[in-house]
Amino acid sequence: MVTEHDVAEARLRIAPYVRRTPLLTLESGALPGLDVPVVLKLELLQRSGSFKARGAFHRLLTSAVPSAGVVAASGGNHGGAVALAARALGFPARIFVPATSPASKVERIRGYGAEVVVAGAVYADARAAALEWARASGALDVPAFDDPLVVAGQGTVALELLEDAAVDTLLVAVGGGGLAAGCAAALAPHGIRVVGVETETTACFCAARAQGEPVDVEVSGLAVDSLGARRVGAVPFAVLAAAGAGSAVVTDEAVRAAQQELWEACRVDAEPGGATALAALLCGAYCPAPGERVGVVVSGANHLRA
Amino acid sequence: MVTEHDVAEARLRIAPYVRRTPLLTLESGALPGLDVPVVLKLELLQRSGSFKARGAFHRLLTSAVPSAGVVAASGGNHGGAVALAARALGFPARIFVPATSPASKVERIRGYGAEVVVAGAVYADARAAALEWARASGALDVPAFDDPLVVAGQGTVALELLEDAAVDTLLVAVGGGGLAAGCAAALAPHGIRVVGVETETTACFCAARAQGEPVDVEVSGLAVDSLGARRVGAVPFAVLAAAGAGSAVVTDEAVRAAQQELWEACRVDAEPGGATALAALLCGAYCPAPGERVGVVVSGANHLRA
Repeated sequence: MVTEHDVAEARLRIAPYVRRTPLLTLESGALPGLDVPVVLKLELLQRSGSFKARGAFHRLLTSAVPSAGVVAASGGNHGGAVALAARALGFPARIFVPATSPASKVERIRGYGAEVVVAGAVYADARAAALEWARASGALDVPAFDDPLVVAGQGTVALELLEDAAVDTLLVAVGGGGLAAGCAAALAPHGIRVVGVETETTACFCAARAQGEPVDVEVSGLAVDSLGARRVGAVPFAVLAAAGAGSAVVTDEAVRAAQQELWEACRVDAEPGGATALAALLCGAYCPAPGERVGVVVSGANHLRA
Repeated sequence: MVTEHDVAEARLRIAPYVRRTPLLTLESGALPGLDVPVVLKLELLQRSGSFKARGAFHRLLTSAVPSAGVVAASGGNHGGAVALAARALGFPARIFVPATSPASKVERIRGYGAEVVVAGAVYADARAAALEWARASGALDVPAFDDPLVVAGQGTVALELLEDAAVDTLLVAVGGGGLAAGCAAALAPHGIRVVGVETETTACFCAARAQGEPVDVEVSGLAVDSLGARRVGAVPFAVLAAAGAGSAVVTDEAVRAAQQELWEACRVDAEPGGATALAALLCGAYCPAPGERVGVVVSGANHLRA
């Protein structure tokens, strides 16, 4: 399990390497149909363009990294974060990406100095190739979410928020569940509830809650490159379940609308996965009680910008 | 003249209506060629998408607004800010825009509920029409920058920054000089210097410094729709001169590069005028001394986004 104490320790370790991202409080009425203020945690401003830098730094700072360096499988935000953390800490990195990864994300991973290897058509192929390379070379595999140290790193988002604002509920997007679980571990002792938000076609957390355990789901759609884990992590799921985290599911159309409303309201340009948590509030998938103070993590922005 | 006290009073008046925008500190190396941290004041997150909301609210809150409402000439950020402030305070607004205004900005002004009147080909035509309407109808004209109350409102940006970070120098873009002057009024008593940054083709402050008084310049180029005042305001110029503000001038290419580097470093998507102050730091037009702590106002983002 991951506790608030673990997250607090992670925060001390990674503080020299990550940004303390700011909050923005949107006044009542700034977002259509919302007659309450909303606190946004602007985690898209983080190094590497998403919260993933937190977990990546924490995993590398708490591991004995061999001379072969580090390896990860990801065509998306995790790959960029591991590449950035490895470069910052002086380790070589090899990132395996599937051929379907967006060119913009692959270019950014390369820009952080990592060796990029295209392996197979889909994520599972890249993941298999990464694990094979880890075995063959001795390189340290950095898991994307199913790891207590990674979860603790992501949870530092919530500790910062705790210091800066008072909320009753925090909406967090769920891919593999690392960010939501870390936040839940940090916030549950304070009586703050995390609600994990997914799109209809990446809803592995919702499925796991229904089954009582992580199960595979089919994934596709607008947010698949950041939220498209086929199965919520065992570690994140245990943490989320213990914390009593809630779940909300939104459509791709709601995510697209949330991206547009974010821009109109405050000139924040988030990727689909980064706007998914807010979408739940805007489309009514999550409906706060009267007086409930809601925070939303805007988690990333590694989409292609025109 | 405008003093720190005037700015502090403005802050109390407008606080219920504007956002306290966050800072983001970029670590050394986050921006290419910069081996020092940089503090960004993210004023593009302000209501209406730029700092202009501050001055507009302050002018309306300190004026007796007649039943004919308010009027302004601007195809850009000032027009949107006046429209927003008028709606929020319950006054009708008529905004005169030249035919050359970007459709995206005009649409936003209309979206804030103002009546938009296209008047003439260039700004001077729209301004003349606005003044004529003010005379004929009795509506309150809200000046864009050459007004002590507007300058005091814009300066609240600097008072917030003072509370959140320690800097020696603040880089601020200059159009008509309202924002830079307000900041200079607030910061000079603290020994913090403001440097006004302009593009080569909107350099009315640089020209005024050379002449010792405001003079007309030809304006054009990338940032003209936000920084393209032909003459720095008399009030702002007097305040800037008294505060000993510096000046730096950059090319359009440097502005374009700064927009791109802002996105790469922290996923901030600023309009050209909003990235102009940072451009001075990135291109070397402003070169800090060793140990000098530099802040930069990222002032707006009302450009057309794809």
